[in-house]
Amino acid sequence: MTDAELDFRIERLGECRFPSPMQEARFIDDGERLLYHDRYRDLQPFIEANREPPAMELGGPRERVFFDPATISCGIVTCGGLCPGINDVIRAVVLSLYHHYGVRRVYGFRYGYEGLVKRHGHLPLVLNPEMVNQISESGGTILASSRGPQDPAEMVDYLEELGVGILFAIGGDGTLKGAAGIAEEAARRERRISVIGIPKTIDNDISFIQKTFGFETAVAEAHRAIYAAHTEATGARNGIGLVKLMGRDSGFIAAHAAFIDSQVNFCLVPEAPFTLEGFFRSLGERMRKRGHAVIAVAEGAGQELLTGSADRDASGNVKLGDIGMYLRDAIRNHFAAAGVRTNLKYIDPSYIIRSQPANPHDSALCLLLGHNAVHAGMSGRTGMVVGLWNNRVTHVPISLATRQRKKIDPEGWLWSSVLASTGQPRELR
Amino acid sequence: MTDAELDFRIERLGECRFPSPMQEARFIDDGERLLYHDRYRDLQPFIEANREPPAMELGGPRERVFFDPATISCGIVTCGGLCPGINDVIRAVVLSLYHHYGVRRVYGFRYGYEGLVKRHGHLPLVLNPEMVNQISESGGTILASSRGPQDPAEMVDYLEELGVGILFAIGGDGTLKGAAGIAEEAARRERRISVIGIPKTIDNDISFIQKTFGFETAVAEAHRAIYAAHTEATGARNGIGLVKLMGRDSGFIAAHAAFIDSQVNFCLVPEAPFTLEGFFRSLGERMRKRGHAVIAVAEGAGQELLTGSADRDASGNVKLGDIGMYLRDAIRNHFAAAGVRTNLKYIDPSYIIRSQPANPHDSALCLLLGHNAVHAGMSGRTGMVVGLWNNRVTHVPISLATRQRKKIDPEGWLWSSVLASTGQPRELR
Amino acid sequence: MTDAELDFRIERLGECRFPSPMQEARFIDDGERLLYHDRYRDLQPFIEANREPPAMELGGPRERVFFDPATISCGIVTCGGLCPGINDVIRAVVLSLYHHYGVRRVYGFRYGYEGLVKRHGHLPLVLNPEMVNQISESGGTILASSRGPQDPAEMVDYLEELGVGILFAIGGDGTLKGAAGIAEEAARRERRISVIGIPKTIDNDISFIQKTFGFETAVAEAHRAIYAAHTEATGARNGIGLVKLMGRDSGFIAAHAAFIDSQVNFCLVPEAPFTLEGFFRSLGERMRKRGHAVIAVAEGAGQELLTGSADRDASGNVKLGDIGMYLRDAIRNHFAAAGVRTNLKYIDPSYIIRSQPANPHDSALCLLLGHNAVHAGMSGRTGMVVGLWNNRVTHVPISLATRQRKKIDPEGWLWSSVLASTGQPRELR
Amino acid sequence: MTDAELDFRIERLGECRFPSPMQEARFIDDGERLLYHDRYRDLQPFIEANREPPAMELGGPRERVFFDPATISCGIVTCGGLCPGINDVIRAVVLSLYHHYGVRRVYGFRYGYEGLVKRHGHLPLVLNPEMVNQISESGGTILASSRGPQDPAEMVDYLEELGVGILFAIGGDGTLKGAAGIAEEAARRERRISVIGIPKTIDNDISFIQKTFGFETAVAEAHRAIYAAHTEATGARNGIGLVKLMGRDSGFIAAHAAFIDSQVNFCLVPEAPFTLEGFFRSLGERMRKRGHAVIAVAEGAGQELLTGSADRDASGNVKLGDIGMYLRDAIRNHFAAAGVRTNLKYIDPSYIIRSQPANPHDSALCLLLGHNAVHAGMSGRTGMVVGLWNNRVTHVPISLATRQRKKIDPEGWLWSSVLASTGQPRELR
Repeated sequence: MTDAELDFRIERLGECRFPSPMQEARFIDDGERLLYHDRYRDLQPFIEANREPPAMELGGPRERVFFDPATISCGIVTCGGLCPGINDVIRAVVLSLYHHYGVRRVYGFRYGYEGLVKRHGHLPLVLNPEMVNQISESGGTILASSRGPQDPAEMVDYLEELGVGILFAIGGDGTLKGAAGIAEEAARRERRISVIGIPKTIDNDISFIQKTFGFETAVAEAHRAIYAAHTEATGARNGIGLVKLMGRDSGFIAAHAAFIDSQVNFCLVPEAPFTLEGFFRSLGERMRKRGHAVIAVAEGAGQELLTGSADRDASGNVKLGDIGMYLRDAIRNHFAAAGVRTNLKYIDPSYIIRSQPANPHDSALCLLLGHNAVHAGMSGRTGMVVGLWNNRVTHVPISLATRQRKKIDPEGWLWSSVLASTGQPRELR
Repeated sequence: MTDAELDFRIERLGECRFPSPMQEARFIDDGERLLYHDRYRDLQPFIEANREPPAMELGGPRERVFFDPATISCGIVTCGGLCPGINDVIRAVVLSLYHHYGVRRVYGFRYGYEGLVKRHGHLPLVLNPEMVNQISESGGTILASSRGPQDPAEMVDYLEELGVGILFAIGGDGTLKGAAGIAEEAARRERRISVIGIPKTIDNDISFIQKTFGFETAVAEAHRAIYAAHTEATGARNGIGLVKLMGRDSGFIAAHAAFIDSQVNFCLVPEAPFTLEGFFRSLGERMRKRGHAVIAVAEGAGQELLTGSADRDASGNVKLGDIGMYLRDAIRNHFAAAGVRTNLKYIDPSYIIRSQPANPHDSALCLLLGHNAVHAGMSGRTGMVVGLWNNRVTHVPISLATRQRKKIDPEGWLWSSVLASTGQPRELR
Repeated sequence: MTDAELDFRIERLGECRFPSPMQEARFIDDGERLLYHDRYRDLQPFIEANREPPAMELGGPRERVFFDPATISCGIVTCGGLCPGINDVIRAVVLSLYHHYGVRRVYGFRYGYEGLVKRHGHLPLVLNPEMVNQISESGGTILASSRGPQDPAEMVDYLEELGVGILFAIGGDGTLKGAAGIAEEAARRERRISVIGIPKTIDNDISFIQKTFGFETAVAEAHRAIYAAHTEATGARNGIGLVKLMGRDSGFIAAHAAFIDSQVNFCLVPEAPFTLEGFFRSLGERMRKRGHAVIAVAEGAGQELLTGSADRDASGNVKLGDIGMYLRDAIRNHFAAAGVRTNLKYIDPSYIIRSQPANPHDSALCLLLGHNAVHAGMSGRTGMVVGLWNNRVTHVPISLATRQRKKIDPEGWLWSSVLASTGQPRELR
Repeated sequence: MTDAELDFRIERLGECRFPSPMQEARFIDDGERLLYHDRYRDLQPFIEANREPPAMELGGPRERVFFDPATISCGIVTCGGLCPGINDVIRAVVLSLYHHYGVRRVYGFRYGYEGLVKRHGHLPLVLNPEMVNQISESGGTILASSRGPQDPAEMVDYLEELGVGILFAIGGDGTLKGAAGIAEEAARRERRISVIGIPKTIDNDISFIQKTFGFETAVAEAHRAIYAAHTEATGARNGIGLVKLMGRDSGFIAAHAAFIDSQVNFCLVPEAPFTLEGFFRSLGERMRKRGHAVIAVAEGAGQELLTGSADRDASGNVKLGDIGMYLRDAIRNHFAAAGVRTNLKYIDPSYIIRSQPANPHDSALCLLLGHNAVHAGMSGRTGMVVGLWNNRVTHVPISLATRQRKKIDPEGWLWSSVLASTGQPRELR
């Protein structure tokens, strides 16, 4: 994808006719846009070509809205795996719809996209401020979730039947593609249904979005597992603590967790391939010098070492081989073969991480995302997600957000900082 | 073991000749004893027989001490698996030796009993207040640990060489038996070496001791895993959360964790055997009625279901079959065979639990145990542990403390309360 | 109060006629009693006099109950200041009434005893399991509270009108006396209304009860303030951290918080009077030697230093002078007069402490107390509280529990351990 | 300050002659710069004028360094009030100097700038990796701190005597101005001493820096006080919770804390003046409608309501009037005069907030800032601070960073989002 191909234009359902009821607001002009690039050198080609450089629409309340708050119904659906903050987003959307716009009918669809297919028989909850007021204290999702796609036609049938004008879809890559499908089907039928995504990926791997909600909580909770691994490793002779963290395609959680107290000695991520030989050489050196080691491995790392299957889960994700178990056994065998008695402790904290309530940072982020998702939806935008860029809430077309995963640049500052913190060599080969 | 066999008498190295330097203390008389029984009906046989009922010596500072603080050296050793609070105990022992008695030489032996065997070459740390002042903020043990016994003769050789008068041994059942062996060897040589145990068992399974340090922290941390299991279970259709907790012989952690927010629906412990049929019948009923379930299983539960091996680890503990993995697969297969799609999430938080720093409750307990271990040692007692009974610190002979494991009484109030909280049937058969 | 005066007999409304619906229970015999004393020497006078020593009735389910679960209504009221765990107790009572006994109507009276007086117009909430399921995650009380007594006649009028058979009163000394008044008024009218108290006192100062709910959470949270004071004190030259903690009549919170990491250097409680001269002499010595100091003062300490007023709050408690502010200024002035520049930081964490959710320990305790309060009420007992003694749930007559405050014995083991931890002299005079 | 005046040029001591020993690094070119503006419309004037728009130098390791790691000594000093993360920064600087560059002599000056003046007699600590390895687990600063300036000549004298080549100054506005003074004095003497600031301001009020370390921890901890206030407010009739938060000139902590669970109903900051009449009108309305309210007030808010003094503290900051106490009394009096019985609880959590250890987010940030401060210093830069801009570490001249405080724009998105979350009117007049 070249810069020239970036198209941040957002679709709209039609002209905004109603005045916003948000009386205290400072409205955002539609022309307010945030530069995609942050270095002058990246802007220069556009300037020389006399073209406006790529920029994202800013989120926020608009002076005129597309839907009539007095008559519109809205829906919320949560899909895929758990992530800290889902309930915060649900709460923020409901409170904003009620208090900012006066919307009075909000459906909470149950069990992901299944709940949007009438024949599954999951009656939607009818949400109101009192119901959602305390839910942000709890992890998980009060709507429950499921994986996998459903037929867009069936879903739009049900949305039409319920008179839903805006559907808020909280989910990851697959969910957002499903949301785009709903938007397309509605457009095909010329139904004015806005579909707004709030990206949920604990891996923080969505392009054009600086940070997704739940990520900071996940890093903080991952650190608790690393702390345990470190404590175990230093509490025994030749102690090794091995922690498997989330990160299917992108190792952001492992990379950021490596910074905290710099307790990680080896950070293994999908973006930086390694061989067992190279890794063992470096690990052996560390054990000889320091007598213990802590390893954080993202679940998607080292897949090339495993005899992979081509299975996929209900969301369509390739089923990864278990690199954690693999490394656990390989390390034990390696040192045993070398006649070195080690004490390896293996920790897989994934479910504990993802079921946490949002920490204060993410709770605040969820509030901003939820409010701005409502502003976007009420203004008639569709087929887009709200995201964060340069710490501002922005609008990104789903097609762009899902085109490819965001990854750690192995030549960039983040990975260099990880290496500076862990002390591991750049090449584990 | 009948009541009549209980002998709480504590051995002593000889007569106390030195005045205690603890000037602000209220000294405990040697005659102060705490009743073992707490019901009058249990005392009546003794009263009728005109015998004093069984009672434990109370811990605390004594007016006269056996060792001369000016000349004695002391040692501390930590053995076996990690447990929250070990560093707190080390800290309390060092601070009490220094500040309460004026002892000036305290060795911290490294890597468990290995560190007491000179030929292993682990030089002991020389501990002082400044070194230990902050260590209670960290989990694990600054001395590191190891499993398994060492030759008492070699250990006493080294203690003699270093001039150690009191050895504080922090560890579980095997460690305490090892400590008794050291005490016996020293007695055989007529060396005045006092050996004081501070029982460390995260399972809280030591007889005649109401609660061991680290247990409350472990229960609190176990609850975090149960919370995650509950969140996962309610966040999906037919969600099942399965958590494996510590508890080799005794299910106290699982039982107490079941009380917190009563989020556990099935608590499986070694003391209450079950069959898969009985368990599945009840689990199936729960799933039909409520659509989700949370199961906490102690690692020692259901061992009769597994084709066990007779392997033992370095501490001499039988290697348990993995009931967590076994149940995970069995439950999945059971429901799959019945055509029910379930969403089971399996969590094994053991290493995260045991590497936590002590919570405030345990931190306070460790302080009391450490101080009183020092009082006991300085008074010339040996072959004993400090424990808690009716919330007072007591002295218990090692022989008595290690004679048999403390277990949940399946007919007692604790298990009845667990059933009242979980709602599970008494018989899962 | 002498031992001979202790009368633990519990009043009952009449004969139990209904079989308990608790099918999995192991029922407690009415004769099961727990000894009040734990030392043989304290029992000897009774044995010699051939009298049964004082003992408390054990809590737990009874085989036959007094009330018909199918027809009874119940009520819950929360009075006085906040304390961690109130919502846990409400939850446990509601769940036990519903699930253990099948009671179907439970009123939650709002704003303390005000809610029991109809003319105040606070309609009671109608509580059910779904409503209370998540409330233990939150601090405070969902019923809200108020201080001060109301007319027993008016309250019994309303209870009669609503057909309430058991009233559960969660509150402190004043609340329990009010509960006794309701029980007496009902008895005078020959109405079969059972009144069961669940003692709520963050100060843990109720006699015949080893530990009240919320106390452990309060101690843990108090430690956070002490940690801050310690950090501030060590982060500046001549730093002094001063923390005012709860403890009107009894300094248990300050005493227990002093054990944690032994960061407190001076623990000032109501039970151990001091003079400014004595305190300053000792504080000055500490500052010269160590350059910093941390002081924890219970709010009821040192009242004799203040020119007290005789004001009382709505609960009838004497309004204490503010010892925290007084000491803050006195210490600053003292050192300033001596030409020593100090850095004193004063922290009053009271509201933050008492509004916490219960920690896991207290959450479990609340569950046990709530369940057993229901068992007691259903069995027709009245005018009693549930408490903890030797770690078992017991029944204590309100008259006995409120006769005098539980206090720290300045000659006992607890205070000696505090002095051993802080290093402060026994006499600050 | 107009855009045209922004000058981000960083001073240097001279030419870099030594190759960097960081072998795994990807070096940053000196030309790499990050745009100050993030909207195209702000860049257009520069483009039209054919000028390069303002941009900041990026932090990171350089291929050639100015100082010889083998011979250089370094110093660290911490000044002003506590802030979460100071120890993390100290640790990161020491570890980076040792492990990345091989520097072997690092002084930790004690008690702020006092420690840089020899006649005060505070000997500096000699820091090494082992000493600092665990310190990030603790709040505060292991070097201790003090307020106020010292004579630059005396400080440079001592730095020269100790042979210090780089001084790392961790502190706020006053500290950074002091650091600039040291740099100037060294330049005047033609001494090659680099002075690098790491901005420490819990208020997050330093210009050209997106976020300072400790801020996220402070917001999270502030939320605990707000949670308490909310719990108290809802736990009583007409409950009002009032929390005073840090924020002398800028209300960022209060504003961000208002987002979390949206529990704040009134957020009062210095940037948005209010009258008591306006505030009471709106507060009264809220109380009538909802029966409770939570107010977060930044310490610098509403100063115009107080009869101010012109006193200043040792750091030269104006001593603020106590708006918290003032509002507490004013609100009580207002409602009492209106015959409304309210329950106001006032909480001042400042010392608890600022003495926390860094949370994982801030711990990671501190690591990055510390590493990059070392890179900047080793490359011979001076008179600058490391900061964060668009989530990258940047270099900012001290003169620019301290020219004026960063403040909330009352017309910007942040304040609008606060109003959207609290529901308070824009004008409280």
